[in-house]
Amino acid sequence: MTNDPKTSMQDHDRPGRAVVLLSGGLDSSTVLAIVRARGYEPWALTVRYGQRHTEELEAARRVAQSIGVAGHEEIDVGLGRFGGSALTAADIPVPKDREPGEGGVPPTYVPGRNTVLLALALAWAEVLGAEDLFIGVNSIDYSGYPDCRPEFIEAFERAGRLGTVAGGARIHAPLIELTKGEIIRWGTDLGVDYALTSSCYDPVAGAACGRCDACILRRRGFQSAGVVDPTTYAG
Amino acid sequence: MTNDPKTSMQDHDRPGRAVVLLSGGLDSSTVLAIVRARGYEPWALTVRYGQRHTEELEAARRVAQSIGVAGHEEIDVGLGRFGGSALTAADIPVPKDREPGEGGVPPTYVPGRNTVLLALALAWAEVLGAEDLFIGVNSIDYSGYPDCRPEFIEAFERAGRLGTVAGGARIHAPLIELTKGEIIRWGTDLGVDYALTSSCYDPVAGAACGRCDACILRRRGFQSAGVVDPTTYAG
Repeated sequence: MTNDPKTSMQDHDRPGRAVVLLSGGLDSSTVLAIVRARGYEPWALTVRYGQRHTEELEAARRVAQSIGVAGHEEIDVGLGRFGGSALTAADIPVPKDREPGEGGVPPTYVPGRNTVLLALALAWAEVLGAEDLFIGVNSIDYSGYPDCRPEFIEAFERAGRLGTVAGGARIHAPLIELTKGEIIRWGTDLGVDYALTSSCYDPVAGAACGRCDACILRRRGFQSAGVVDPTTYAG
Repeated sequence: MTNDPKTSMQDHDRPGRAVVLLSGGLDSSTVLAIVRARGYEPWALTVRYGQRHTEELEAARRVAQSIGVAGHEEIDVGLGRFGGSALTAADIPVPKDREPGEGGVPPTYVPGRNTVLLALALAWAEVLGAEDLFIGVNSIDYSGYPDCRPEFIEAFERAGRLGTVAGGARIHAPLIELTKGEIIRWGTDLGVDYALTSSCYDPVAGAACGRCDACILRRRGFQSAGVVDPTTYAG
């Protein structure tokens, strides 16, 4: 895994194709801008894994168009059939008004999600001949998900190297050790229009709820970055 | 990873739930019978990843019913959208009448397939509270797929351990070092009805083609096992 924050490419002279996991949230949109700035040819992959709402998916399309990609694929995988997460099952409520990260892993954790996302990105990277794969996971301002940790990303990269003919892909997680404020400053420098992005776990009539972990972290991130928050919050 | 062929459970006294990847082919059907024989509560997972034909999927249903499962989930993931394999793209022919394993990795390789299958099984295992996961990969009589090798399975198991709250699942690949003949003998001892299974990459009007790698390996397997082959081959 490489997290190479703000450094230029060192391991190859001319970046080629890169697969970018793009949810349409703040983090993955920033990553897409980073990938473009580094000169890769970005191929965005959006996975519909059974989310209860479609705000993120629409945001992903807007962001891909705004930042620019060589291709944008949307793929369905019905993780909602397994249940077990507030993000995919309507009968499990999204926690509100709590301190993100406290009280262990919250019900918004989707079992196996990043493993599935990385597996799909790995598959597409092999077909495209892309040697690089970017994911916007973050282990600082996050909700305590195990599949956002550096040691998981490294272990998955190794599995991908052994499980593909092409030898897998380098997995880049450029945000993994940054705070939300640092991410927003970086993206703002790169011209990301955060008004296009959607982070909320439980949007209300198109507006962010303002009370879930994702909204709380996003709001604080803009405050600490000293950047105007373009988000419309319902609460 | 454990391949523990023909040994009894040693690491826990009472087997619990196990997720079994069930394609409906000869190998995974044998694995399901092994899982039952070992006393696990089997939860079968069949993944529709964009296969050109549906014979395997129908076989999976028959086999699950015949051997018996606690639950059988079918999940869609559109790997066919990525292309790049003779199993998912109609414009890439399935090789026929060749010596399986010669000439490198064949076009029937589906990029990232077992990584995606294991990721989905891992996700379901976490929701079910299953600590064991079974896959029928085989590194002896196979077509040269990198994601059938023991080192890949081990690396994925490690990633799953790090990427889940539950600590992942033990990945069992009980067939990994067996020949096709040994697999068939084992399954026959366990009462598997191989007439229900489907291995062919390119079935013709419901019958196995008899000429693809999968048919050639299956046919030879029955011969070497000294077991009557119940398959109807078109060629």
